[in-house]
Amino acid sequence: MATTDDRRPKYQRIADSLREAIQSGEYGPGDRLPGENDLMTTYGVARMTARQALSVLRDEGIAEARKGAGVFVRAFRPIRRRGIHRLAHDQWGNGRSIWSADIENRALEVDRVTVSEETAPAHIGAALNLAADGTTCVRRRRFVLDGKPVLLATSYLPLPLVAGSAITREDTGPGGTYARLAELGCEPVHFREEIRSRMPSKDEMEQLSLAAGTPVILICRTAFTAEGRPVEINEMTLDAASYVLEYDFDASPTATPPNG
Amino acid sequence: MATTDDRRPKYQRIADSLREAIQSGEYGPGDRLPGENDLMTTYGVARMTARQALSVLRDEGIAEARKGAGVFVRAFRPIRRRGIHRLAHDQWGNGRSIWSADIENRALEVDRVTVSEETAPAHIGAALNLAADGTTCVRRRRFVLDGKPVLLATSYLPLPLVAGSAITREDTGPGGTYARLAELGCEPVHFREEIRSRMPSKDEMEQLSLAAGTPVILICRTAFTAEGRPVEINEMTLDAASYVLEYDFDASPTATPPNG
Repeated sequence: MATTDDRRPKYQRIADSLREAIQSGEYGPGDRLPGENDLMTTYGVARMTARQALSVLRDEGIAEARKGAGVFVRAFRPIRRRGIHRLAHDQWGNGRSIWSADIENRALEVDRVTVSEETAPAHIGAALNLAADGTTCVRRRRFVLDGKPVLLATSYLPLPLVAGSAITREDTGPGGTYARLAELGCEPVHFREEIRSRMPSKDEMEQLSLAAGTPVILICRTAFTAEGRPVEINEMTLDAASYVLEYDFDASPTATPPNG
Repeated sequence: MATTDDRRPKYQRIADSLREAIQSGEYGPGDRLPGENDLMTTYGVARMTARQALSVLRDEGIAEARKGAGVFVRAFRPIRRRGIHRLAHDQWGNGRSIWSADIENRALEVDRVTVSEETAPAHIGAALNLAADGTTCVRRRRFVLDGKPVLLATSYLPLPLVAGSAITREDTGPGGTYARLAELGCEPVHFREEIRSRMPSKDEMEQLSLAAGTPVILICRTAFTAEGRPVEINEMTLDAASYVLEYDFDASPTATPPNG
């Protein structure tokens, strides 16, 4: 391991050289990395140093430990979530995507569905234009792909609007919540999605079975009627290792694209 | 600290109660949290336990340490990056945003601009439809807001297309790269943005001066001409604590909005 920077701790230098081997393709997605014993022999270091080197890669989310089997290069085989269906995507298929992703032949299930009436949290009440202490219908559920939980969703709808409709039941019927909103004269026709990312809370880690070093992506979607009335807010928490979000859009005739 | 779950380690229970105090607003953004000495007194624990409790909140990105001053609730005052300018945003201003954000009165600077000719990495070459070993013009730069680096950007353009134009110079001239592409008969009119999130590499942590427990958001934007030809790929790496990404779009007449 030739390096000119010998001031850096040994475990960092070992981690660097494993990282380079991963980035160069020497170890591919799903491959087993050298174990502690291998690293001890190769680099002539103590077990603790070998362990620290591997934990650097785990903390960066590049590798993951599997109990009793070793440390593996994490496979990134994400779900592609298209934010905007409206545009003819095929038309732009000429340039290939940077990150491949698929959901075909994989089973997506929804579990832990609950529906309740709750006073809106302040930020939800403000975004839904509710009166102070406005009551909302809250729908929670979890999405599980191939047995791995990937997304938590919590939808808030103004209770006066949806009371008595199937939206307040677990099974919202054909077409789901949006079809019911349309029947109530409040069809959502415009959407705003706001995206953030941060480290998960302990509860989110458990609910999404997250590996160490995995952030969550937060998507907050607000659905508006044609009159601009906000009728639903859906707060989603995604396993960042399971998703690529994609947005396709046309250039503005008047504005340059967002800088950077 | 009344709790029914006494099996959890003490530092976790202290972290939980601090987290609750933050979520309830008892400690607001930028507020100083109780220090190790305070926690030792309040909970009757050892210094190491108090330190662990605070490090849980730092690892979650909720709190950040400032040298010699203590641990503070992280202020989330992000930049709002609008992905799609085309839509009349004001029209939908009726429902307020979940996360407030601003950039007004803040100084955004671009530094570390470099331009070079490089063989395209395989995934870039494929996405730009380049021949094997195709050469690209690579533009790198960093965006710094109020002295804090917030975004790294690397743009790749096919060299045969842009050779001899101002795109190959540091200063691309009025209107920037897209104005020059338009002059070359390759105006970008359609964009695809792909978004991921992961933990930063050591190099990204340094370049973006990231606090512990801060993921990065990756945006890969492909710019297409009206004929569907990909002419630029911009790989961006964002400090997740500094950004909210926003996308506004209309519902598809034929498809339901993305589930979840």
